Amino acid sequence: MRRLFLFRSSPKSKNDLKLIRFIIKKFGHRPKKLVLFKIALTHKSISNASDKLISNERLEFLGDTILDAIIADFLFHKFPEEDEGYLTKVKSKMVSRKTLTTIAQSMGIADHIVYQTGRSIRLATLEGNAFEALIGAIYIDSGYEAAKKSIFHSVLRAHLDLPTLLEKEIDFKSRLYIWTQKSHLDIEFKLITEKFADGKWFYEVEVFINSNPYGKGTGDSKKVAEQAASKETLQLMGAI
Amino acid sequence: MRRLFLFRSSPKSKNDLKLIRFIIKKFGHRPKKLVLFKIALTHKSISNASDKLISNERLEFLGDTILDAIIADFLFHKFPEEDEGYLTKVKSKMVSRKTLTTIAQSMGIADHIVYQTGRSIRLATLEGNAFEALIGAIYIDSGYEAAKKSIFHSVLRAHLDLPTLLEKEIDFKSRLYIWTQKSHLDIEFKLITEKFADGKWFYEVEVFINSNPYGKGTGDSKKVAEQAASKETLQLMGAI
Repeated sequence: MRRLFLFRSSPKSKNDLKLIRFIIKKFGHRPKKLVLFKIALTHKSISNASDKLISNERLEFLGDTILDAIIADFLFHKFPEEDEGYLTKVKSKMVSRKTLTTIAQSMGIADHIVYQTGRSIRLATLEGNAFEALIGAIYIDSGYEAAKKSIFHSVLRAHLDLPTLLEKEIDFKSRLYIWTQKSHLDIEFKLITEKFADGKWFYEVEVFINSNPYGKGTGDSKKVAEQAASKETLQLMGAI
Repeated sequence: MRRLFLFRSSPKSKNDLKLIRFIIKKFGHRPKKLVLFKIALTHKSISNASDKLISNERLEFLGDTILDAIIADFLFHKFPEEDEGYLTKVKSKMVSRKTLTTIAQSMGIADHIVYQTGRSIRLATLEGNAFEALIGAIYIDSGYEAAKKSIFHSVLRAHLDLPTLLEKEIDFKSRLYIWTQKSHLDIEFKLITEKFADGKWFYEVEVFINSNPYGKGTGDSKKVAEQAASKETLQLMGAI
């Protein structure tokens, strides 16, 4: 990071104080080197070409991996009975572009991003990237444990609705497969109804485990019906 | 991790002592909870189905992300002038399956892996996975900083030839493009010679930067010739 002096200013400006308050409030972290957080919030559109490195891209690269490790730790301990297939799946949902954007928006990061307006820039992309860069900044500023504490105690608690994420995003059919494999049970999806009426398709699927009927589900595609039947089966089994 | 008691044994057996010595010698880490390291070295082939969770897969899931974060930190500081595109590229080479297997083989991890023989298991895959699981074990045993210290001071220093990896694996044409973009220079690859003689093709390529000739390269394909010309240009420029 060359030419950091561009960012140095002393005494602290009004904007600096606003930024410090924001980081403390949303991340539970008191910045030591404020310049790191300014860089984390600087989109490359603002730096002219020769200052290319003074943008948040390098911190985003770092923060992305730190966040991944922290979330893996979180899930490893939260789900001690689940195998690595399940953990991988949930992690990929938690660190997806979509989830990161939701978190960043909930935190109000956009208000603090410095970028050049008038270009065709999608703010949603900027927000998720700036969020990752801020995690990178905390890591450089105070180390891994500080970043972990921030994620565990501030970010996940206040800005991620994990139950809804799990409920919504996890594919029930896959979970059911994993669950039945673990328990050595045979599983079969039977198509009970397939009809076209009133201009749309209707499907009804029933799950059989060791030849016994369990959950049923309906939908306008076989896939939707299978998901619903899988969910009901998992509920009947007490697995969710 | 249920039923860990299966792994507990006291006083320490000869095998335990051998394992402790191995972890200290190769990872520079003294195990606190030896059971974690035993799990990290247990392939799923050995656990019967109901004990599925007592294998190294969950630790491998965790260790994979920890290793990624530590390598990102390493590169972030090692290459302060490189952009995130370069860092991403080098990281992906350093944590590739191929590199991890090479490291694991150099460390002699295979001798300590517990797996069921007689099945069609590729030992090379097991080694890289066990290496990641061992990083996960150090992380759970003593935290992130301990894992980082192990990677920085023991693993990378003794078991990874980074210069050769960079030299061999990095695509010189891409590096040259990145370099010229950063420096706002125009770049052009000119095909000087293309001929078929003695049953094979011969290509000669010359690099022009801001219309001035720089490196030349030859090869039996245009791609090989371009790589060689790019490498020579980077050398002439003092960029490598």
